[in-house]
Amino acid sequence: MTIEYSTPYRRTSKIPAEPGTPYFIEKGLGDRAHLFGDLVTVYAGGEQTENAFNFFTVEGPKGDLIPAHRHDDTHEVFYVTDGAVRVFVEDAEGRQQERLLTSGDFGFVPKSCTHAYRIERHHSRIVGVAAGPGGTFERFFENLGTPTDQVGLPPRPYVPAPEKFGIVPQRFDVTFLPDHRWRTR
Amino acid sequence: MTIEYSTPYRRTSKIPAEPGTPYFIEKGLGDRAHLFGDLVTVYAGGEQTENAFNFFTVEGPKGDLIPAHRHDDTHEVFYVTDGAVRVFVEDAEGRQQERLLTSGDFGFVPKSCTHAYRIERHHSRIVGVAAGPGGTFERFFENLGTPTDQVGLPPRPYVPAPEKFGIVPQRFDVTFLPDHRWRTR
Repeated sequence: MTIEYSTPYRRTSKIPAEPGTPYFIEKGLGDRAHLFGDLVTVYAGGEQTENAFNFFTVEGPKGDLIPAHRHDDTHEVFYVTDGAVRVFVEDAEGRQQERLLTSGDFGFVPKSCTHAYRIERHHSRIVGVAAGPGGTFERFFENLGTPTDQVGLPPRPYVPAPEKFGIVPQRFDVTFLPDHRWRTR
Repeated sequence: MTIEYSTPYRRTSKIPAEPGTPYFIEKGLGDRAHLFGDLVTVYAGGEQTENAFNFFTVEGPKGDLIPAHRHDDTHEVFYVTDGAVRVFVEDAEGRQQERLLTSGDFGFVPKSCTHAYRIERHHSRIVGVAAGPGGTFERFFENLGTPTDQVGLPPRPYVPAPEKFGIVPQRFDVTFLPDHRWRTR
């Protein structure tokens, strides 16, 4: 049995438009978006949880360091289920650390802490939960990137138009810090 | 580098007592508890997220159906990373469904929906997020069950003393429904 819904985000989605509805989604079939070389799949958003939390995955190939950024009002979980992901984070006192996470390892980035990550093995997958008192930001990826009905990684990287960087991040509590330097090594 | 903290829940924990501190936890080394045959590992709790959400895993052997229950104020995610778990859920209109979740599959149980699950393969693991407007309930498992420093599944099932069932569940927004019947098959 597969039910599909029409929602504000997708013409057809496995996520019910109506909160309070129990649902199941098969692996890979959440609301999908491409952003650069990565595939982001949303399985639950703020609508499902009274804005308490969300649940999504980020899958990607071995790649470059994601630009440093912070969320002023959003705490973020990095839980790796496949591959290897190096997470960089700086605390409120400016202390920096980095850690290579592999399957089953967990990282927590509190709000306001500048962070970044780099996927270091092909076929990696991160489970993310990103939420805080201000709500959830799971639709950032499809707004900076692009929604897709495809299954799997982007066949070609989706590079956002430059003007999107001036508009989208601030709508989703994302502040990029292009001058940030990691001194961890 | 391994830092350990003393918290209200553990003499030594990988979870910082002080909110706002970034941290990493290796696979299996969160705050652990045994409840019946299962191992519950908490990686983040309400203290870390301003009570927005938590993050934990439930690992267990192939076993029996967990008793039907509901959370009046808590939405719950079931995300299976290993093995196979059958989730049963009833919506507000009394419609029941069940689904076998395997690695990468996702289930969402909104607050107030009666639900249950059964681990159907050995070495299964569920990632759980359980939170709502009333907060988070990750310490339920160690209060009904028992905290442990061991790594791995309980060597013997931990069966709670009967009187605990009259006290602990209501403190953590858990209502057991012993007379509930699943009509899905």
